[in-house]
Amino acid sequence: MHRTAAIISQGDEIVIGQTLDTNSKWIAARLLDRGIVPLEHVSLPDDRAAIASALMRLAARVDLILCSGGLGPTADDLTRFALCDASDDTLREDADALAQIAAWFASRGRAMNELNKVQAQRPSRAAFLPNEFGTAPGIRTRIGLCDVFCLPGPPRELAPMFDRLVTPLLQPDPSRTVRVRVLHTIGLGESEIASRFRDAPGGNLMARDRSPLIGTTASNSVVSCRIRYEGPLSAGEADQLIARDEAAIRALISEAIFGEDEETLASVIVRTLRERAQTITTIESCTGGMVASQLTDIAGASDVLRTGWVTYANEVKTREVGVPDSLFKDSAESKAPGAVSAEVATAMAQGGLQSANADYAIAITGIAGPSGGTLDKPVGTVFVALASRSHAPDVRRFAFTGDRSAIREWSARAALATLWLNLSNRRGVRLLRQV
Amino acid sequence: MHRTAAIISQGDEIVIGQTLDTNSKWIAARLLDRGIVPLEHVSLPDDRAAIASALMRLAARVDLILCSGGLGPTADDLTRFALCDASDDTLREDADALAQIAAWFASRGRAMNELNKVQAQRPSRAAFLPNEFGTAPGIRTRIGLCDVFCLPGPPRELAPMFDRLVTPLLQPDPSRTVRVRVLHTIGLGESEIASRFRDAPGGNLMARDRSPLIGTTASNSVVSCRIRYEGPLSAGEADQLIARDEAAIRALISEAIFGEDEETLASVIVRTLRERAQTITTIESCTGGMVASQLTDIAGASDVLRTGWVTYANEVKTREVGVPDSLFKDSAESKAPGAVSAEVATAMAQGGLQSANADYAIAITGIAGPSGGTLDKPVGTVFVALASRSHAPDVRRFAFTGDRSAIREWSARAALATLWLNLSNRRGVRLLRQV
Repeated sequence: MHRTAAIISQGDEIVIGQTLDTNSKWIAARLLDRGIVPLEHVSLPDDRAAIASALMRLAARVDLILCSGGLGPTADDLTRFALCDASDDTLREDADALAQIAAWFASRGRAMNELNKVQAQRPSRAAFLPNEFGTAPGIRTRIGLCDVFCLPGPPRELAPMFDRLVTPLLQPDPSRTVRVRVLHTIGLGESEIASRFRDAPGGNLMARDRSPLIGTTASNSVVSCRIRYEGPLSAGEADQLIARDEAAIRALISEAIFGEDEETLASVIVRTLRERAQTITTIESCTGGMVASQLTDIAGASDVLRTGWVTYANEVKTREVGVPDSLFKDSAESKAPGAVSAEVATAMAQGGLQSANADYAIAITGIAGPSGGTLDKPVGTVFVALASRSHAPDVRRFAFTGDRSAIREWSARAALATLWLNLSNRRGVRLLRQV
Repeated sequence: MHRTAAIISQGDEIVIGQTLDTNSKWIAARLLDRGIVPLEHVSLPDDRAAIASALMRLAARVDLILCSGGLGPTADDLTRFALCDASDDTLREDADALAQIAAWFASRGRAMNELNKVQAQRPSRAAFLPNEFGTAPGIRTRIGLCDVFCLPGPPRELAPMFDRLVTPLLQPDPSRTVRVRVLHTIGLGESEIASRFRDAPGGNLMARDRSPLIGTTASNSVVSCRIRYEGPLSAGEADQLIARDEAAIRALISEAIFGEDEETLASVIVRTLRERAQTITTIESCTGGMVASQLTDIAGASDVLRTGWVTYANEVKTREVGVPDSLFKDSAESKAPGAVSAEVATAMAQGGLQSANADYAIAITGIAGPSGGTLDKPVGTVFVALASRSHAPDVRRFAFTGDRSAIREWSARAALATLWLNLSNRRGVRLLRQV
């Protein structure tokens, strides 16, 4: 029975901060979907003793361990050795695994490298898990009473192997239910939300001893509220409890909720526009394609975003979306507002709306830094303008802080948030960092 | 003295896979820069006992612990309590911290929420670390002989606090040196590189008992080679050893190396184009702005990428960059190649080159899925075309696998790689997954 799990990711490159581990998050979400609760993630260097020690510590505490990485062909791939140490086993060559690796190379017209042969080795009491997308087979074994699955590190290999080979072998506790519901908000700070939850009519929604448990997480301007049930009730009963809490939360912060669970601002926008058969165009300066990229990451975006522009240079803003040249250049009688201004943002949006013949156009112009700031408009000054067929433009000025990358992320988020506020008739709502 | 470190990130949202932890990677890289070796990352739920237990386990093993998260104003923020449990201490209100939180709210014209007062509490023997960018002060304390720094979870608050408040207090071992050099490659598989390293003239470069230690990591089509020295030599001597290994590696895989350390394909491309005073334009279909976004994430990109297009719809490809309509539509005598074809990719690149008056134009058209695939052109079929003023177009067809998001990432990477191969006179090099 698998009630609880731990997730181990391996590799010097992760522990020294060269590579971001995304596998652990992905595996955790998959396990929770099946009602198995992840209790810990650990990242370890290519150190056989450290890996073996973590395997033994965690095997004594959880029912299931998922490892990623360390199965490659090179001398710094040590998972198979650490598994032997932790389970008092020895390595042997797996004929099926060897045949699979040879076939993988043959199908690509390449010769199998001698080094790849080590990838066919596994602890003698373990089983191998075939890998269709790479050369490293996975390994399935047991340490004491704990089931252990080791998968290769590349996410494109790990994900299909998990779904096809690990998922069918998971044994969640049928008498225990785990259900999670997440509501995503924009425009309210985390402490404002917590304060409303604390003073809720039915008592503090965030008390640590209540069930379901309610928590919040802030990520840039999005605050997510998580309702989580874990206990003996049936899934139906748990869902009722969660629905009751969801209703209570919606009553307290309805103006700020834009999506649920896996939804993002981009996915909600694409879905809404598709439902209404409307289109959007993007005209981006400092975000340089991020807003278009986030929208087009959603399947079906091609119905919605048919054109987008990256208009960095002033003459491109003029040539592509007709921003009047006079807005950039000082004339004798008046000072021009300049490229980073409400006027230019508005002209970009209105010009893009016309050129693309879209229902909405979102424009962003700002100073992402590190250079380019002035006293009046320091680095982090960003203007977002939304033009539409139905309303006057919605133009907002923001003062963001952080490095170039942070300011760009905030800017893209602010653009999507402005769009969502307009799509959902909440034009009056101010956003965080709006000045 | 801080020789070794562990990094703890906290929050249910991380452990259940709702939120990706990026702080641990960031902190690890900063520590290694100072010569302090991270030995483990752990992510834990909002569970006071689990946090206290990890603090005690790691404090017995490393010289320094860095924690992120769990300092917020809500009931699921439990770090301060766990610190007390692990260091046998009790909480007290810190007057300076309270004043800082009150001032933070006052400066924004907001009233301090009652809940924020808990953020001024710290273990009695601890010190508070002021936070200029948010309401949660950090906490500095000691568990046994181990120094512990707790910082708030939002990266925009954590990063400046680490750099300003933690870095000056780090005490790396002056008699021990840690140096890392990374070389990034494209076009060679990880096992091909490992095989060349194993057969190196001076002996196996990847032996686990040699110093410096050499390792490889694959991420999509980029394989990074890491040379790491850790030992008693002076920094200068360590750098000499690393330089010797770097030269050996360069001799073995010179055709594939595009960058070093923090460099990326995008940063190398932007730097190269700036040095040559040349410009690039992007014409993106299935990547929908990702290539432009990755290029513009680099400071100075505005000199290089002045225009970009997202041309999803066929009529937009025609209107914006002059792709002949006949390439999309069947005529009586011949079958048209269609939107996802070498012909259209080439026309997009050539049209964009002209319209933007740039030196290079990179175009991407493909099927990212989940729908839209055919027998001839399944999901994952992507064409990349590079047009330039100096050479005939370089057009490549790729067959990628994975979900929409994976195919888009591979496509953007392939576009940047094609561009780099052209900028560095390596047009003949094939890329992984190229067909």
